[in-house]
Amino acid sequence: MPKVGLVLSGCGVNDGSEIHESVITMLELDRAGAEMVIMAPNIDHLHVINHATGEEMEESRNVLIESARISRGDITDIAVVKADDLDALIFPGGFGVAKNLCDYAMAGPDCSVNPDVSRLIYEVHDAGKPIGVICIAPALLAKVMGEKSESVDLTIGFDEQTGNDINAMGANHVMCPVEELIVDTEKKIVSTPAYMEAKSIKEAAAGIEKLVAEVLGMV
Amino acid sequence: MPKVGLVLSGCGVNDGSEIHESVITMLELDRAGAEMVIMAPNIDHLHVINHATGEEMEESRNVLIESARISRGDITDIAVVKADDLDALIFPGGFGVAKNLCDYAMAGPDCSVNPDVSRLIYEVHDAGKPIGVICIAPALLAKVMGEKSESVDLTIGFDEQTGNDINAMGANHVMCPVEELIVDTEKKIVSTPAYMEAKSIKEAAAGIEKLVAEVLGMV
Repeated sequence: MPKVGLVLSGCGVNDGSEIHESVITMLELDRAGAEMVIMAPNIDHLHVINHATGEEMEESRNVLIESARISRGDITDIAVVKADDLDALIFPGGFGVAKNLCDYAMAGPDCSVNPDVSRLIYEVHDAGKPIGVICIAPALLAKVMGEKSESVDLTIGFDEQTGNDINAMGANHVMCPVEELIVDTEKKIVSTPAYMEAKSIKEAAAGIEKLVAEVLGMV
Repeated sequence: MPKVGLVLSGCGVNDGSEIHESVITMLELDRAGAEMVIMAPNIDHLHVINHATGEEMEESRNVLIESARISRGDITDIAVVKADDLDALIFPGGFGVAKNLCDYAMAGPDCSVNPDVSRLIYEVHDAGKPIGVICIAPALLAKVMGEKSESVDLTIGFDEQTGNDINAMGANHVMCPVEELIVDTEKKIVSTPAYMEAKSIKEAAAGIEKLVAEVLGMV
């Protein structure tokens, strides 16, 4: 039974993990017989967004605690997770990736990444284990790999600005439709646009289902 | 294209909608080509639970605003939704159903139901349109239908206490495994246990997928 790490970044597309992408990833992993290690950093959200209006709320929330809503309480602090605990690692998207796991949403290609997140990515990658990145998570991965001067083929779909940023961080952005993947076979890195392109949940699901199968196939 | 109302009760199994059940319902509705009207009452949560620890938090959250996390911002106040707007109605589970949409979690069979929720259920049922109830939501429906002395076949799985309560509220509880449904063909009411019984997300999904197909087949 492969053990797959799932890195969450809160609970809700505008300030945390994209909920549909996270749940569909979990469903596919469970259907494939994979065990999950669901984790998040124990840090405050950048901010809290009222998802009904899009406005910022006068509140503070914790990324680990909010992520536990998606995992029904089964959550591990990413600080204690090691590559040895995992056979693969997957990042669902959502603004939380670009606001809480790194600050790409504010700083663009000059962003910095949560040190536990980059540590775990390096460990997993150095151990030759596959990594899947969904939606905006390829921007995070481009930064982390770029800091070691490793160029990876990645996609976030067709968005020109984000694609250029990914290239600027040292990766190679490849355009890709929502239901497809970009697979860097050598680096064992798989990406799919999901809600960077999806017009509805079934479109996001089509690419995520393929990503989970591809990542598990590399284990 | 059938138009299906989805009633949410917050965002997270312990104080709101069960997220997996909500997302799987949305995915199946989208795949079946149904349009969704995602709604919630504009009221405060009973309380806020830290899903990592299970403890109550010193916070106040709004059911409509938190539900919008699951729907990516697409949320309607249930107060303005009418049966004419819908071809069917579905309630995912989660403690929010028993804490925010009604107070079954505290009051048991003597619970009272949010007036907009009961109004919409009566309207939809009186219009001969189907209703699907997932997980603990059959307890809510038992109360609402029981108040009009309508007995409905319903299931929450095998839990004896909840089954007895459902009978006490005037419905007829039927035991049912997680991947199956109870269909009251005459009353057009469909129920499945989901996380009342599910040990993992794929088990919850199996019953929910059948429920969505059954409800849409009744439209």
